Amino acid sequence: MSQSFNQNYQYKPKKNLSVREVVDGISKADPQILSKAITMLESKKTTDRLLIYDAMAEIPKSKNRSFRIGITGSPGVGKSTFIESFGKYLSQHDISLAVLAVDPSSKLNGGSILGDKTRMEDLSSMPNIFIRPSPSKGHLGGAGEQSYDSILLCEKAGFDVILFETVGVGQSETHVKHLVDFFLLLVLAGAGDELQGIKRGIMELADAILVTKADGENLEKAKVSKNNYENATHLFPNKENSWITKVATCSSIENKGIESIWDILKKFQKHNTINGWIEKNRVNQDVFWFHEKLNQFIQNDFYSRIGILEELQELEEKVKNKQIDPFKAAKQLFNNESKK
Amino acid sequence: MSQSFNQNYQYKPKKNLSVREVVDGISKADPQILSKAITMLESKKTTDRLLIYDAMAEIPKSKNRSFRIGITGSPGVGKSTFIESFGKYLSQHDISLAVLAVDPSSKLNGGSILGDKTRMEDLSSMPNIFIRPSPSKGHLGGAGEQSYDSILLCEKAGFDVILFETVGVGQSETHVKHLVDFFLLLVLAGAGDELQGIKRGIMELADAILVTKADGENLEKAKVSKNNYENATHLFPNKENSWITKVATCSSIENKGIESIWDILKKFQKHNTINGWIEKNRVNQDVFWFHEKLNQFIQNDFYSRIGILEELQELEEKVKNKQIDPFKAAKQLFNNESKK
Repeated sequence: MSQSFNQNYQYKPKKNLSVREVVDGISKADPQILSKAITMLESKKTTDRLLIYDAMAEIPKSKNRSFRIGITGSPGVGKSTFIESFGKYLSQHDISLAVLAVDPSSKLNGGSILGDKTRMEDLSSMPNIFIRPSPSKGHLGGAGEQSYDSILLCEKAGFDVILFETVGVGQSETHVKHLVDFFLLLVLAGAGDELQGIKRGIMELADAILVTKADGENLEKAKVSKNNYENATHLFPNKENSWITKVATCSSIENKGIESIWDILKKFQKHNTINGWIEKNRVNQDVFWFHEKLNQFIQNDFYSRIGILEELQELEEKVKNKQIDPFKAAKQLFNNESKK
Repeated sequence: MSQSFNQNYQYKPKKNLSVREVVDGISKADPQILSKAITMLESKKTTDRLLIYDAMAEIPKSKNRSFRIGITGSPGVGKSTFIESFGKYLSQHDISLAVLAVDPSSKLNGGSILGDKTRMEDLSSMPNIFIRPSPSKGHLGGAGEQSYDSILLCEKAGFDVILFETVGVGQSETHVKHLVDFFLLLVLAGAGDELQGIKRGIMELADAILVTKADGENLEKAKVSKNNYENATHLFPNKENSWITKVATCSSIENKGIESIWDILKKFQKHNTINGWIEKNRVNQDVFWFHEKLNQFIQNDFYSRIGILEELQELEEKVKNKQIDPFKAAKQLFNNESKK
């Protein structure tokens, strides 16, 4: 499953794949086919997406179930560095990993762009590691269902672990619960800032909070942070699966704490496989995306009509200039289109 | 504008109003017509809603602009008691007020139901006060656009202040910014729990945080809380209108602090009328609801087709039982319906 970063890094394949090529490629976990298939899922053309859906329905279920992990954190928290250390650890232990990462070049607040890219390149050359960066708009920026499809595609390709990175801005994190089994929140240690930078709701969603950069001068601060977060977790509302949010520290530079986070992950997986929650949660996610997709089909059908965007634009201007009420405008546009 | 609570409290008018009756009634600020019109906005029947939209387009713009205030807070924080004191204060100062309240009988976590009702009844008998409780599902529980329409209707009726109460559960508070000019958050004083119960994102949305029940034994705690919140507000991201979140205390029992919150509200209104933000914000809200309404029309049109709910149910079951992929199911339902 090893391949170079550059192969994954191409968003626009020269030619589209056929259903047969996708089915064969994914079944063999061919990284180039997988990457191209994700590109087609991210395509604006409905036909591209439908081809992949057709293929996915034909690919037999993978024997083993992937462990789907969502990862988020503020810019500068060290997400890329963590993913690198985590990926290396898994690779060394012969555990295959697919990383659905945010394209560093499209990050709005992106730290060291070249640094990120080099690290990812380094990781992607290791055995059993697949990395697919996506433009950040593809990551729940209004196109959440493609993210779910990409995860399912990676699962069909048989990866043991799927790591889904979200951009730590706005509402996207709350959507992540519809995508993954486990939600990992990376935070920076800091005197008193624990509760400042991170939205409370995000913390409550987390299955584990990982205090990064717990090394050198930062070590003591990180330990204090860990304690504070642990105290805070006791006040969180109970989770349906009775899992209590775990808190840990790590240092990607000193390569410390990676094993303990993997232990937490394995413990979670065991706990929630036995009690049936992972299965139940996935069924709920499937139902959620069924409805989302249906709404997407309905809306696409409407908004792809000829001339509609111009009419929409025109009415929006009228609403802005108070020439028409918002509901009158909506009704007018809808009635005009329905008559066509 | 005075009327009894019981008149407002009827959700199902015996017969529907005509466009003419709505136009005349709202123009005269007739509380019974206003209440019935809101009932029709909350109706499941599209024709009821469209009738009100038609009427609204005919009602001439009110001379004065209403000040639209959203109010939220956890159950038990004293929302009803605050609304009562605030309403009495406004009534005494000859300022008319429309309260779009959550129906206490439908509150999931509702404190003293009878107490709430009695207080509201008391207030609704005062001059210039209109109170309209809605079932909580009507308050942004998937039906946000009706809330906006109700606010616009109250504005057309010429109220000086419109108070929109949200249920303090889940995501609804973040939607409130699409509805109002000012967002007031009520909080309880408590040792160290300031940042625990309330989602950070909600705090950042607030234009003012009001620590309630600042009386008796609680007074000192409330003062400490006020200081803590004030410190926290300095770390909030800057608001577009350059307004800095204000913090105040109040005691509805001792009737203290109501005047100072009204001063804050007036200061905000002046500040943001001069800089043009209120106007700009309302234009953005109009555009937002234009798109929301259009999507609602599109979806209603699809989901109101004959037999569709049965088909939806059937496919959802198949998704649950893993007999079909979520995207295949969505595609199948959409294609079946499109062919009809």
